[in-house]
Amino acid sequence: MIDSGLGGLTLVRAIHRALPAEQIISFADTARLPYGSRTPETIIGFARQIARFIRQFDPKHVLIACNTISSVALDSLRGEFPDLSISGVIEPTARAAVEAAGARAQPLLAILATEATIRSKAYERALARRRSKATLLLRPAPLLVPIIEEGREASDPLVRLALRQYVHPLMARKIDVLILGCTHYGVYKNAIAQMVGGGVVVIDASQRCADDVTRRLRSARKLKEGGVGHLRSFVTDDPGRYRILAEKMVGLTIDEPTHVPIDALPDAEPMRVRAAG
Amino acid sequence: MIDSGLGGLTLVRAIHRALPAEQIISFADTARLPYGSRTPETIIGFARQIARFIRQFDPKHVLIACNTISSVALDSLRGEFPDLSISGVIEPTARAAVEAAGARAQPLLAILATEATIRSKAYERALARRRSKATLLLRPAPLLVPIIEEGREASDPLVRLALRQYVHPLMARKIDVLILGCTHYGVYKNAIAQMVGGGVVVIDASQRCADDVTRRLRSARKLKEGGVGHLRSFVTDDPGRYRILAEKMVGLTIDEPTHVPIDALPDAEPMRVRAAG
Repeated sequence: MIDSGLGGLTLVRAIHRALPAEQIISFADTARLPYGSRTPETIIGFARQIARFIRQFDPKHVLIACNTISSVALDSLRGEFPDLSISGVIEPTARAAVEAAGARAQPLLAILATEATIRSKAYERALARRRSKATLLLRPAPLLVPIIEEGREASDPLVRLALRQYVHPLMARKIDVLILGCTHYGVYKNAIAQMVGGGVVVIDASQRCADDVTRRLRSARKLKEGGVGHLRSFVTDDPGRYRILAEKMVGLTIDEPTHVPIDALPDAEPMRVRAAG
Repeated sequence: MIDSGLGGLTLVRAIHRALPAEQIISFADTARLPYGSRTPETIIGFARQIARFIRQFDPKHVLIACNTISSVALDSLRGEFPDLSISGVIEPTARAAVEAAGARAQPLLAILATEATIRSKAYERALARRRSKATLLLRPAPLLVPIIEEGREASDPLVRLALRQYVHPLMARKIDVLILGCTHYGVYKNAIAQMVGGGVVVIDASQRCADDVTRRLRSARKLKEGGVGHLRSFVTDDPGRYRILAEKMVGLTIDEPTHVPIDALPDAEPMRVRAAG
């Protein structure tokens, strides 16, 4: 599982529950987060470095547990690593949103996401493939990731104000479904659901992504049945801080992550060196 | 001038005014900001890459226009690049704060800064060298850099709330001097000064750093007297966004910056390759 920071852990938690026998490796690029306000070229460059690092573990599946990387870099990663099975979070999330919209003739779906995810139009494409008649409202929420990575809880007045600023304009439009288009936002799912009220279905991808990975592993006959799985975490910066925030923000108790300095990541374009004669 | 993002431009503006004949090169690592919540090892690694890039221009002086890099990486950079004249922002800022404290027997100084700057204790050391009797209050404000880089103006309710959360606990302690220990914070200097009221001197380093660089160039007999200087900017991500935010947040009109992708930066530890035989 690849992510920029804490957000992917909301998926780690769901997948670990769904597949308790599997070994999970999570990678969080905490030295370079947040990804969501960066250009596609930068995000793709970072993601390629991480995928090269992850490949050494010979994973049976790689989940891009981050909407920004999934939106922008999934095709590049699949192109560069044809030997790896790779999936993202956009498709399962879009599927869940369409189901939640149900039989409404012209549902109004809103997406709260990073700037990079919104600019990529990945959600428009994924939803249009499933449902031609639906209206989409896109709302970038660039500050939520830094707020979550600072460790602020949902009860903090600044968190409430930021959520109100981002969510109220959507509520004024009488939306039917609100997609949390960034895995980080799952941390504030309850506060957001309370804010929008019972008439709006709030979609957070974690359960759907766990189901999707389960289905992929089963159809590839790679599902592990017995044994006890273990979670191993890698971060590019401060392992202690990551462990503490994982517990505080996601409620996940993890072992101390392994630190991988940025300059220890394989270059995206490896230098070819001829053997010295 | 080296910085993580927009903050350094508050110094670029002051230095360009003080030394209008000088050619200025500014480098902003916008693909990897914010630096302030990262570990010293990561910050030093990033700063070394940038210094290697900057060195190719054979600068007569390098100003680390960022408190976080100055606090954490200045000694490493001076050690690695003994041929470069390098200075930071901590010393001029500390000098200004001590002067502002004036003749008070036991002044109470507060510093608003990033987590990395506070953990480094650079300000404690710089102030203690000048003034043995002073009390320091340290306050990390990790969200201000992301808020400024999002382009939010001082009148935004979320900006007001964040400033209140960070500044009010200091005001309750009846401080005499408030040091803005991050060059970004200069963007909100007026709002902060208004918040703390006339009894508190708010120190923002830009003018002092301009004076300091002028003095260094003069004493090295490197001051350029005639001609018209030009500002050239380099960024590691989205040049257009940087130019627009420079105008909006710092009031500085700049030419479109040149994009330097992260993987085009020289490695901190260059690989030595023996010539193939």
